[in-house]
Amino acid sequence: MIVIYGCYRSRATRNIWLLEEIGHPWRLERVVQHYRVAASARENGIVHTRSAAFLARFPAGTIPVMQDGDVWLSESLAINHYVTRNYGGAFAHHSDAEDATSMQWTLFGATSVEPSALALSVLSQAATPDATEIDAHERRLDRPLRVLETVLERGDWLVGDRFGVADINMAEILRFAASRPDMLSRFPATAAWLAKCQGRPAFQRMWALRSSEPAEIAARTS
Amino acid sequence: MIVIYGCYRSRATRNIWLLEEIGHPWRLERVVQHYRVAASARENGIVHTRSAAFLARFPAGTIPVMQDGDVWLSESLAINHYVTRNYGGAFAHHSDAEDATSMQWTLFGATSVEPSALALSVLSQAATPDATEIDAHERRLDRPLRVLETVLERGDWLVGDRFGVADINMAEILRFAASRPDMLSRFPATAAWLAKCQGRPAFQRMWALRSSEPAEIAARTS
Repeated sequence: MIVIYGCYRSRATRNIWLLEEIGHPWRLERVVQHYRVAASARENGIVHTRSAAFLARFPAGTIPVMQDGDVWLSESLAINHYVTRNYGGAFAHHSDAEDATSMQWTLFGATSVEPSALALSVLSQAATPDATEIDAHERRLDRPLRVLETVLERGDWLVGDRFGVADINMAEILRFAASRPDMLSRFPATAAWLAKCQGRPAFQRMWALRSSEPAEIAARTS
Repeated sequence: MIVIYGCYRSRATRNIWLLEEIGHPWRLERVVQHYRVAASARENGIVHTRSAAFLARFPAGTIPVMQDGDVWLSESLAINHYVTRNYGGAFAHHSDAEDATSMQWTLFGATSVEPSALALSVLSQAATPDATEIDAHERRLDRPLRVLETVLERGDWLVGDRFGVADINMAEILRFAASRPDMLSRFPATAAWLAKCQGRPAFQRMWALRSSEPAEIAARTS
């Protein structure tokens, strides 16, 4: 049993999708981002990312954190590589080269795609979206999205001609940019790949859980 | 023999330090960042990151790229994990948990430290450094540096009580912030760890190579 400390509306989605994909048992131990817990609820027993008990164990104060027996890990993308390697079964990489290539795509996603994709997600939700800022981030995504497009024009998946952890990690990173469908549509192979990833039953199960969670956590006992 | 496509003044330093550390044979196939090649030299046989031949093979147009037989990888941090796993010998991880914890620190460094550390490096070299921007990036580094400090107060190295790939990756990321010694001195365990990392003979050999490379590449034949 793998325990994920975190909540559905967090990068834990990456881990939950993978765990559902490979059918490995897991459960969620709820820890919510501090900023999503209403002030009135903070003293009400809800564990959040600035709770003293959480910080004592995880000074980074970030979710998700994974526990697998004695192994504790943070960084959602690293967790997914650990789980794939140890519990992936047929889903795991077939060679060291495949494993390394997946890590290459994970790092490319984390460094070249995620910062601007996340910024677009936040900017799009603003009361008055800043068009100049949005344009700047779309421009910054042009090069990495062209790289992905080139790869996905040549093959259906990122590594080894089959769906794998690199696809999960990249699809979850790219989901942050879903608020910009016009941008994504300029990369048709990437858009088609993302739709295929998100059509998988394991993604759909994860998404149903995530969608059922309120965006703001009010007092539990009020 | 591992071939690194890139140059010394690039993130290839991470790979060269590791290869020197473990004593694995390597050679550099020179590819220079486009912006460092003087316009007059671009048509002069110097391979750079926008050369057609390089882009045809590596559409991302970034260095370093590693070749190990049939295995080609980009992303310097992923390359280091591959090399450690395959050629690390006694330097390699002793367990899956150690390997995963190293990857956790690599991803933490890449996402939480590198963006602002790199920005500080660039800002400090400006003719008129922007103090407001510098302050903003120093503030952004406060949380991740406190996390590192907590870990390095408890032990000498990031993973497994010995120097390893996570230390190399994080030290090379943090080197981008070396232009801000006052900031680093607020984290004494981290500053001491960085000095210890950079005092290693393998780092010194890498650093001598890097320092011998000119910052701007002029025409080779002029």
